Amino acid sequence: MPKPIEFYFDFSSPYSYLASEQIDALAARHGRTVDYRPVLLGPVFKTSGGTPLTEGYGPKAEYSKHDFARSARFAGVPYRAPSRFPVGAVAAARAVLWLQQHAPEQATAFIHAIFRAYFVEDRDISEAAVVGAAARSVGIDADALAAGVQQPAIKDLLKQRVDEAIAFGMFGAPLIVVDGERFWGNDRLPQIERWLAQGPF
Amino acid sequence: MPKPIEFYFDFSSPYSYLASEQIDALAARHGRTVDYRPVLLGPVFKTSGGTPLTEGYGPKAEYSKHDFARSARFAGVPYRAPSRFPVGAVAAARAVLWLQQHAPEQATAFIHAIFRAYFVEDRDISEAAVVGAAARSVGIDADALAAGVQQPAIKDLLKQRVDEAIAFGMFGAPLIVVDGERFWGNDRLPQIERWLAQGPF
Repeated sequence: MPKPIEFYFDFSSPYSYLASEQIDALAARHGRTVDYRPVLLGPVFKTSGGTPLTEGYGPKAEYSKHDFARSARFAGVPYRAPSRFPVGAVAAARAVLWLQQHAPEQATAFIHAIFRAYFVEDRDISEAAVVGAAARSVGIDADALAAGVQQPAIKDLLKQRVDEAIAFGMFGAPLIVVDGERFWGNDRLPQIERWLAQGPF
Repeated sequence: MPKPIEFYFDFSSPYSYLASEQIDALAARHGRTVDYRPVLLGPVFKTSGGTPLTEGYGPKAEYSKHDFARSARFAGVPYRAPSRFPVGAVAAARAVLWLQQHAPEQATAFIHAIFRAYFVEDRDISEAAVVGAAARSVGIDADALAAGVQQPAIKDLLKQRVDEAIAFGMFGAPLIVVDGERFWGNDRLPQIERWLAQGPF
């Protein structure tokens, strides 16, 4: 079996959202699956010195906002700029980890539901009620999930995942790893497609 | 006549080089020409707070170097990492401006010759002799060019161009402007192609 494609993301990252809407089909075209790895860019940026694209130098921030929406239209992916950006996605990230352990067949649908709640429906995904609604929308027991994300083991697991990402040098999202080869950014999907089709280049 | 595509670049920028090897053909496919606009990222970054991709956080710098070469292979463009990077491209940029005034039909060939001297042949394009050799290789009178780039009017023009780029909010290269729409980066060429083919999206 070929290895799953590792997809490191933060729910607050627009380019992670755009890539998440395309990566399942891309992987399937080449007989692969996607291993979704939620992390938090906040602590990653603390180490790497990065900043959210909409902060810092004004013209770059304005360009980035314009490019998020244009890149979404280019990819045919629905997108609405969130009112609150970036947003704390800790609860949603923990929920993914709990689901991957306890209801793995529902985890990917939940990931897409959270991304769409944030980047299409403009819901504040830092709120437990919004996370619960997204869970219910894909048939997940929201009460069990709400209890699950409070487990110390889940909290520790997210912290460990973030520490691992920092340790291996993650500096932005999405980071997509194919057979050990790293690709950073939604705009590397065409390179990933060639890699999957033809092998290393 | 449709407007030329404005291509703002720094000779030290690998992604500018990769895009420069593709933009003429892309423009021609859609009945456009390319208006090459040399600028200097040094003063641009002083205002925007940017840094060369190979400086700063180690893992990001390493990824960038890897991505320069992989993106070149992906595009089918020859590439060799320069020994000296980044390099001062003031003399080469001034030479472009002088040629665009005095031998415009040779300016584009010169631009490609300089880029290839730096990113394929690993020549130090900050040296006047290397600029002269690149000029001769495309049939330009290198002595006339060497005198031309010393003209105060040419020096002032480059300074003015850089100031204008800073004033309109340039923050990275290549910056490619199509009918007023800005696209940043070699990886936006597919979006530019769609824009030229189908109009605004």
